[in-house]
Amino acid sequence: MSTDSLQQLAQALDQFAQARDWPRFHAPKNLACALTVEAGELLEHFQWLTEDQSRQLGGHQREAVALEMADVLLYLVQLSSALGIDLLDAARRKMVLNAEKYPVRPPL
Amino acid sequence: MSTDSLQQLAQALDQFAQARDWPRFHAPKNLACALTVEAGELLEHFQWLTEDQSRQLGGHQREAVALEMADVLLYLVQLSSALGIDLLDAARRKMVLNAEKYPVRPPL
Amino acid sequence: MSTDSLQQLAQALDQFAQARDWPRFHAPKNLACALTVEAGELLEHFQWLTEDQSRQLGGHQREAVALEMADVLLYLVQLSSALGIDLLDAARRKMVLNAEKYPVRPPL
Amino acid sequence: MSTDSLQQLAQALDQFAQARDWPRFHAPKNLACALTVEAGELLEHFQWLTEDQSRQLGGHQREAVALEMADVLLYLVQLSSALGIDLLDAARRKMVLNAEKYPVRPPL
Repeated sequence: MSTDSLQQLAQALDQFAQARDWPRFHAPKNLACALTVEAGELLEHFQWLTEDQSRQLGGHQREAVALEMADVLLYLVQLSSALGIDLLDAARRKMVLNAEKYPVRPPL
Repeated sequence: MSTDSLQQLAQALDQFAQARDWPRFHAPKNLACALTVEAGELLEHFQWLTEDQSRQLGGHQREAVALEMADVLLYLVQLSSALGIDLLDAARRKMVLNAEKYPVRPPL
Repeated sequence: MSTDSLQQLAQALDQFAQARDWPRFHAPKNLACALTVEAGELLEHFQWLTEDQSRQLGGHQREAVALEMADVLLYLVQLSSALGIDLLDAARRKMVLNAEKYPVRPPL
Repeated sequence: MSTDSLQQLAQALDQFAQARDWPRFHAPKNLACALTVEAGELLEHFQWLTEDQSRQLGGHQREAVALEMADVLLYLVQLSSALGIDLLDAARRKMVLNAEKYPVRPPL
């Protein structure tokens, strides 16, 4: 099963959940809870690090962080499927809003 | 600026941050904080809803949720760039681990 | 209405919620969501600060942080009431467990 | 060591941290991260429960939730010590603001 794009990842996750009879648990509210829980698990790796230490994560710790980030992505993709939201399109629209909110300051 | 894939989104975000002199703030620790904060803002939309209500988000509320999800994705992508982590590859590896941890139960 | 202790605070919060017909929203699950959302709002004040800057919060920012911390406490107290949990007693038991988990290292 | 009030709990936590040479890690930013991480661990217990199931937590699960709530309180108290914030006083002020923001609706 290919997961080279967010769309393919969404399909793979849908099959994964269906095969385990999980969709009944996957109300958007519950997926938003699970995503937040995973964000906390990601943050846990950084809580006692200095900023500099966080820039130099290596080896085992970097892989652990990568897998926590994957968890966040997996729930984000499942939530987007549940709500029929196109994640990359939403990201595009948010970047336009951010560009308006935080204009580049002209040189003095 | 195209953002049709996570790679292109990562490049667009990098340019956006560079133009505003933000990379000095973007230590992985800080990006993990910001991602968690955005996850909380996403969850806020669901906190008093029933599961059923969360399945029927519409109109203004659904768009607000889409933009919060975009914020989570934007920080997730920036964190992956900062740490040199391939998000889709990490997601793939996590799905393999999940399949081992939660095998499909055979029919009785 | 006095709020000189957690018990009195719990009573005041109960009256506050009753007067607004809010108990129907206050399932423990929803209170746990709300608590997490408030934790995120608290963290938002710190996300781009250095550790040193976070030690020197003053004036308006310190008061804003105090009110976010209050929000976390208000939901924590409401959750403890909803579940019949004695917060200070739970804290006492947790400290005993922590003392076992993290013994003081003897001098070399 | 008595922990019958938040003040006594704060003192006990301060001694606990001092004995382990932890104050150097306890910048307010880091404590806010740790508090948010613990809030996520608390939420994890509820993420797949219905609201009704969350009202009927019992036995082992209720004790696990109590200890996660204790963790949130322990970091909240340590953060209040680090910033010199009186938690109960902040809660009192927040309740006054909430009463203004959400007035009791008069009967029609």
